[in-house]
Amino acid sequence: MATLTILYGHPEDPAAFEDYYANRHLPWASETMPSVQAAQLRRVLGTPGGETPPYYRIAEMTWADQDVLQAALASEEGKAVLADTSNFATGGAVLLIGQEDQPS
Amino acid sequence: MATLTILYGHPEDPAAFEDYYANRHLPWASETMPSVQAAQLRRVLGTPGGETPPYYRIAEMTWADQDVLQAALASEEGKAVLADTSNFATGGAVLLIGQEDQPS
Repeated sequence: MATLTILYGHPEDPAAFEDYYANRHLPWASETMPSVQAAQLRRVLGTPGGETPPYYRIAEMTWADQDVLQAALASEEGKAVLADTSNFATGGAVLLIGQEDQPS
Repeated sequence: MATLTILYGHPEDPAAFEDYYANRHLPWASETMPSVQAAQLRRVLGTPGGETPPYYRIAEMTWADQDVLQAALASEEGKAVLADTSNFATGGAVLLIGQEDQPS
């Protein structure tokens, strides 16, 4: 499986982030981004050591393989969805393309 | 669901990381860490923008809820597993405790 992990930094206004994320970004992204098989959305609550976590939220999308992921991100729809993050991710965002390990 | 996400920085010696990770850390962690429901392991291949990704690997463990996660991480076994990362994660590691969003 191929994954896109988005690590959102702490936004300037968490309430504004949550409103845009839940009511505009996610409904639109889930209809628009091609061929996503699964999505997992998490709030970051803390760290095992008790430090302030460097990220605010984690989002993960899964595609069947890297070719399908690359086609989705390169599509007009995919580029528009990724570009929309700048409308609410005021704390920045780190995007990571991943490949699931084969079970050993 | 409650999650622990580990973001591994780029190790000094990737081959040594992979050897310790696959042959020592993971087999021991999967037998030792209490009450884990699922684990996902990913290599980071890149970023959508083509920059060098800031992380090398992502590992995610899932527990039933935050109480079970906290008990696992606070146990002697859990603390030993987390402490073992210093034996191979020469590029550092960011640990994030997360809470899955309720489906809307």
